[in-house]
Amino acid sequence: MRRVQVGIVGAGPAGLLLAHLLRRAGVEALILEARSREYLETSPHRIRAGVLEWGTKEMAVMAGVGDRMLREGLEHKGIYLAFDRALQHVNFQILAGHGIWVYGQQYLVRDLIHHHLGAGGEILFEHEVVGLENLEENPVVVYRTPEGQEKQLACEFVVGADGSHSLARQCIPQAKLHQKAYPFAWLGILAETRPAAEELIYASHERGFALFSMRSPTLARNYLQVSLEERLEQWPEERIWEELNLRLGGVAEARPGTILEKSLTPMRSLVVEPMQHGRFFLVGDAAHVVPPTGAKGMNLAFCDVAVLYQALMAYYRDQDRSLLARFTSEALRHVWQAEFFSYWMTTLLHTLPDPFEEKLRQAKLRHLAESPHLQRFLAENYVGLYTSGRYAGNLGN
Amino acid sequence: MRRVQVGIVGAGPAGLLLAHLLRRAGVEALILEARSREYLETSPHRIRAGVLEWGTKEMAVMAGVGDRMLREGLEHKGIYLAFDRALQHVNFQILAGHGIWVYGQQYLVRDLIHHHLGAGGEILFEHEVVGLENLEENPVVVYRTPEGQEKQLACEFVVGADGSHSLARQCIPQAKLHQKAYPFAWLGILAETRPAAEELIYASHERGFALFSMRSPTLARNYLQVSLEERLEQWPEERIWEELNLRLGGVAEARPGTILEKSLTPMRSLVVEPMQHGRFFLVGDAAHVVPPTGAKGMNLAFCDVAVLYQALMAYYRDQDRSLLARFTSEALRHVWQAEFFSYWMTTLLHTLPDPFEEKLRQAKLRHLAESPHLQRFLAENYVGLYTSGRYAGNLGN
Repeated sequence: MRRVQVGIVGAGPAGLLLAHLLRRAGVEALILEARSREYLETSPHRIRAGVLEWGTKEMAVMAGVGDRMLREGLEHKGIYLAFDRALQHVNFQILAGHGIWVYGQQYLVRDLIHHHLGAGGEILFEHEVVGLENLEENPVVVYRTPEGQEKQLACEFVVGADGSHSLARQCIPQAKLHQKAYPFAWLGILAETRPAAEELIYASHERGFALFSMRSPTLARNYLQVSLEERLEQWPEERIWEELNLRLGGVAEARPGTILEKSLTPMRSLVVEPMQHGRFFLVGDAAHVVPPTGAKGMNLAFCDVAVLYQALMAYYRDQDRSLLARFTSEALRHVWQAEFFSYWMTTLLHTLPDPFEEKLRQAKLRHLAESPHLQRFLAENYVGLYTSGRYAGNLGN
Repeated sequence: MRRVQVGIVGAGPAGLLLAHLLRRAGVEALILEARSREYLETSPHRIRAGVLEWGTKEMAVMAGVGDRMLREGLEHKGIYLAFDRALQHVNFQILAGHGIWVYGQQYLVRDLIHHHLGAGGEILFEHEVVGLENLEENPVVVYRTPEGQEKQLACEFVVGADGSHSLARQCIPQAKLHQKAYPFAWLGILAETRPAAEELIYASHERGFALFSMRSPTLARNYLQVSLEERLEQWPEERIWEELNLRLGGVAEARPGTILEKSLTPMRSLVVEPMQHGRFFLVGDAAHVVPPTGAKGMNLAFCDVAVLYQALMAYYRDQDRSLLARFTSEALRHVWQAEFFSYWMTTLLHTLPDPFEEKLRQAKLRHLAESPHLQRFLAENYVGLYTSGRYAGNLGN
């Protein structure tokens, strides 16, 4: 049976960053990933808006994987809010000291794979994990090779980083799943066209929420709040463009272009507690899901990795297990803060089915437009409360 | 049939302040009040915490009814938050420029009655309004005298200021009632004892919310969050004091004393829209109810009066009806802001039945403890966004 210090399930941003940091520090890590490298790097279904907190961008640079991100990413000074037929800029640089960095998650995954493999790291693509055993004492990862063979990997620690539909999370016995389903979904499109603005527009309209984001100056990623019962067939291209423009209320224009991908995503929140069991740890979407309104997903994954990496290094350098023991309680601080902010943004911008709460929501939005304090609260949380400062130091050697 | 320029239903803070201001400006107003003067001024059931926004206190002074309030009221620099076994002071003076004024609503009612009658104003106590007629054109108030006689009062305008259980609000045809019932009630006590602290303590504990307020240095007004099914018989005195102290978590002490009054109040929010019909207008609790957590009730009544008084004076001085026509849309701005803030405070401090929302609530409370921006948001709303400046000017002659 092959042996490794740290076995990682999943080659998403969390698993890749952790493997790369560990390898750089001399700890042997092996990633097992069910899908192909090509799928991870090129499937349009995997394209997300890609908002990086300022500290997340800094972490990527400190981890040595940020060269292309710095060249090709876009700095945004803030976001736009569109409502009541007006466009208001929320300037994060002024309100919170710095902006955000926009760079597709898929691109960052590609860069992480490139740097990790280039530095001698190992990723087993198309190797599906089918079991995690003996996680308290001597963890074993059971996986299937592309040829269909079942094999075993003995690990000192196992990390579950297999995303929002995680199977690994089932390996935490008596885990408590804190969750909430929202009464709406996002219809997302990726289209070849100039984005509606140079920065993201969060549009709140009586017809529903719409988000206008971009992957590049010629690739727009837009979303519409739709009901949970909606089906993609009900949304021919013309209807999508018409609805996007209606919700902008005339303050900007969504120019129609070839739609490369359409998707429906129900909004939900999920937190798994605890995030560990014995020698097994969960990170990223495997441990928690946020509605994408707050743009926290990938940033939370980086936060988890910053905490777990420091804890693993305390163990491997000083045989100190105390940080590993405290991993869940440490991580849940940034997790619940992000869950709270994501919920706050979601219930600020989406039309709500309860008529009283919908009226309160409109009052909250009007107050936000006038209150520098609420704007600073939004800005500080959007650019990141944990990645800047608190966690960036964890990545030092 | 007797005639008057403005007929007012109800001698609460809203009706009294409006009548007093109108009389001072030479407009004849008559208040009809179902209860006796003695009941209004002395019933312990009517004792509320009595938090006045700084601007509400200023309005009372400008209206010429603030002499005793200034002598006997207490200035509070802020409030205390008690949670996680710690006591944190939120200093409104530092965060928002000024504090609040604590003076019982019942005392202010007594002062308003005293000044209004002393200046030649008229209040018909124990005169119950039994009908409002012809409100579009030539309003008539039908009322019953203490002797049981039914009489009529012809008015140019009628104002419904008959409180949270308003009958007058039914006279707005096709009124929309925006409302929300919260899944908990307040068990309130008034007790002869030294208050738990020199300023209000808002305590959030896993057993539920508790509020520690005062009417004077020897009279405490405390509240416990309880379920909607609770009955007063289930709460003997010892249990109340024990529970109050449990929820303080040791950071302060609620000293037992003689309990003068016990009450149960379900928490609810209500907004009536529109707040007017023809020559009829609603003000104060008759038009809207807030859960008391944000201490907004009496302050909202003063806001309504400031808007309606200015509109009535524009009519009587300049025959300008435009402000009267816009009364609802003007008033709903401060109403919905207060509803939003009251909901925010209520869902910040009370334990919530939904486990996910309860976890979010705890994250919000922890973030508030650390975030100067959220503290400023709280402070600015608590000391009053509308009464200071925006509305105080309305009271000028």
